[in-house]
Amino acid sequence: MSLARVQYLAISLDGFGTGEGLSRDEPFGHAGDRLHEWMFETRWWHSVVGKPGGTGGVDDAFLQLFSPGIGAEIMGARKFGPPGWHEDPEWKGWWGPNPPFHTPVYVLTHHPRAPIEMEGGTTFHFIDASPAEALETARKAANGQDVRIGGGPTMVREFVAAGLVDHMHVVIVPILLGRGVRLWDRLEGVEKDYAIETVSSPSGVTHVTFTRRGL
Amino acid sequence: MSLARVQYLAISLDGFGTGEGLSRDEPFGHAGDRLHEWMFETRWWHSVVGKPGGTGGVDDAFLQLFSPGIGAEIMGARKFGPPGWHEDPEWKGWWGPNPPFHTPVYVLTHHPRAPIEMEGGTTFHFIDASPAEALETARKAANGQDVRIGGGPTMVREFVAAGLVDHMHVVIVPILLGRGVRLWDRLEGVEKDYAIETVSSPSGVTHVTFTRRGL
Repeated sequence: MSLARVQYLAISLDGFGTGEGLSRDEPFGHAGDRLHEWMFETRWWHSVVGKPGGTGGVDDAFLQLFSPGIGAEIMGARKFGPPGWHEDPEWKGWWGPNPPFHTPVYVLTHHPRAPIEMEGGTTFHFIDASPAEALETARKAANGQDVRIGGGPTMVREFVAAGLVDHMHVVIVPILLGRGVRLWDRLEGVEKDYAIETVSSPSGVTHVTFTRRGL
Repeated sequence: MSLARVQYLAISLDGFGTGEGLSRDEPFGHAGDRLHEWMFETRWWHSVVGKPGGTGGVDDAFLQLFSPGIGAEIMGARKFGPPGWHEDPEWKGWWGPNPPFHTPVYVLTHHPRAPIEMEGGTTFHFIDASPAEALETARKAANGQDVRIGGGPTMVREFVAAGLVDHMHVVIVPILLGRGVRLWDRLEGVEKDYAIETVSSPSGVTHVTFTRRGL
């Protein structure tokens, strides 16, 4: 069974998945790196950036789930680039020539363009589609494997609201951003559809996992 | 040193400390009991309602902090009664003839009335005062002991924003209320003033404690 999975979506205590003022220099706006500092200490992150060492605890365990079993990703337009990226024909994402996805990636945008094939197996496809349509497309490409619902918070919220998410891993970071994009708006009662587990990490963050009931 | 302490303020994952539609029948509005079910299983709660037994884990440990060292409480008008309670001269709070406070309690209200002396050492005083003024008054009454900042979420937010809270214990309950009164609005950056610890409980809730730096 091909699941739709949200992985390590980091939010502040007050529920913001990104800050205000997103730009090329500040992909998360005034949040800066603060939503992701817990990640930089892990073995997984070290391996991504080519460093030795790193922690091997619960933070790392969740991050190691990133690639295995994932056959495609869907991401929101605001994850792919800073505001206005669609006006830049040269923009190919934040991740350099060899992005960490290594699968087809479907970018939801009202400004579709031709696909971009990157090194390492990542191809960016640009589609103007509803969450359900995008998931159907990505599932076909995933060839029986799972589909990563890649964020940001707005698109994750829309996929959850549409009942399309099977697994979700949210990381609560003990900071108060005060402004930005909230993950949880208008999702009253969706916890009824999920078994929820919570575990706090010595790093200070709290991992909350949602597993759809009856899977 | 007399500290100002917030105890077990329960909020939903989306940050609501109370629901919508507060009334005499539903003190927490559409949230019902859902923000407090984790509490009902504990030894502490059992002792409050006169039952034997109950769990003795981390949830109970935090709740056992309720009375020791507390010499007075300040509560918001919305904690003392349902909307419009000030128009009912007979209203004496939700807690029956012997409320669980057993200290002076200062109710913040724009409609002060004469104090009400209850059984067991609780006296309700009604004051129209700023957070700082109320804390000064309650501190005098507490006679060197700590002052409980009793909630609800609006008044806790105001006391935190005013820099008056020394300890705060927040309990995140894994439900999505979607509407009601948010604890965290307009508190950007206050985490810098606190050492924060997080621990998840087998009951499913997460305890987050804030301890003012430099105490």
